[in-house]
Amino acid sequence: MDFKQLQNDINIQFKHDDLLKQAFMHTSYVNEHRNQGLDDNERLEFLGDAVLELAVSQHLYRQYVDMSEGELTKFRANIVCEPSLEQFAKSIGLNEYLLLGKGEEKSGGRERPSLLADAYEALIGAIYLDQGFDTVIEFLSQFMFPNIEPGAFSHAMDYKTKLQEMVQQDGQQVHYEIVDEIGPAHDRQFVAKVYVNEIEKGEGQGRTKKEAEQHAAQKALKEY
Amino acid sequence: MDFKQLQNDINIQFKHDDLLKQAFMHTSYVNEHRNQGLDDNERLEFLGDAVLELAVSQHLYRQYVDMSEGELTKFRANIVCEPSLEQFAKSIGLNEYLLLGKGEEKSGGRERPSLLADAYEALIGAIYLDQGFDTVIEFLSQFMFPNIEPGAFSHAMDYKTKLQEMVQQDGQQVHYEIVDEIGPAHDRQFVAKVYVNEIEKGEGQGRTKKEAEQHAAQKALKEY
Repeated sequence: MDFKQLQNDINIQFKHDDLLKQAFMHTSYVNEHRNQGLDDNERLEFLGDAVLELAVSQHLYRQYVDMSEGELTKFRANIVCEPSLEQFAKSIGLNEYLLLGKGEEKSGGRERPSLLADAYEALIGAIYLDQGFDTVIEFLSQFMFPNIEPGAFSHAMDYKTKLQEMVQQDGQQVHYEIVDEIGPAHDRQFVAKVYVNEIEKGEGQGRTKKEAEQHAAQKALKEY
Repeated sequence: MDFKQLQNDINIQFKHDDLLKQAFMHTSYVNEHRNQGLDDNERLEFLGDAVLELAVSQHLYRQYVDMSEGELTKFRANIVCEPSLEQFAKSIGLNEYLLLGKGEEKSGGRERPSLLADAYEALIGAIYLDQGFDTVIEFLSQFMFPNIEPGAFSHAMDYKTKLQEMVQQDGQQVHYEIVDEIGPAHDRQFVAKVYVNEIEKGEGQGRTKKEAEQHAAQKALKEY
């Protein structure tokens, strides 16, 4: 397995190559090579999961300043989950590098979402141990964060997009109006109304115009 | 509220005092002071939870080199959970600092485990943003890590202690023997047997003598 190619692809030169290799070592491979003193990737995955959780949390915390804790938590769960991590793993070709036992290979382990997601987390753990948190952030800034959009991960959260889609399917028009601003300047709350074909369908409030519109769209969706 | 006292107590001087204060700001307090442009501690708690998760994971990963991923995950869940965080919060007197609305105060919010656990996580988030990850580790090394023992958190995991307690209650004696060593030197597996009053009660295998004994104790407990 040519781990040099992978290091070039992800722009990270490991100090400890064996750590990188360990990230791809499935327990089935270790079991088949008992006499080689290998460690599987499970403990690295344990650590990497926590590293990824913090890196993503920090990214979302800074990027989405209007999101509530509940929205952030949902968003994070939609990123740090098997289906998403499988995609991220495939996008950098990690399936090629998995080290599997023969049985696991035969039964299609190389394409198994759980193995790919685990290897992705283990790789994050290996980068963290070998290079530190800043390099993890650089890696994710290149290969993960650019693909993170609320719409792409949690359709349930982006109410405006969802409403727009439903309304368009019915050949109708949607528009928003900011109808009021309440509270003092330093704690301004906006009030938005959403109209479908000029008929009012919901009202929402928020600390930004966009948040107010999102909440109005959420109301409208409930009755759509 | 004298946040200077708290900063002295935890040996951290904040660059941004408002961040520290925010960590203690319950949403009920913010709602009662709408015109002051305050933010509650919920987003800080979101971030702090992930910071704590990584700090604890890293500590366990390094400290317990023989634990499997499954054991580490259980152990971590027993530390980063409401009952444990409530204890840690109380141990440094955080309940005094909670900023609550009047209704929340009246109904006993200051002693509510969830509010204390949330404030603890929010404090970790505030330390992280104001001072960085290394200071979080210093803080936890002083006030949390010394209190972390497998036995203290997850009795289910420390099988030897548990068996010892049960056996003693019955006025009996327990002892262990390493009966075999298998595999090559660099991948040695130990085999342990546990005896209660000289009668064999279980056998276990592991990469260290202690791990083998733990597994033997686990077997014995199942039939005790």
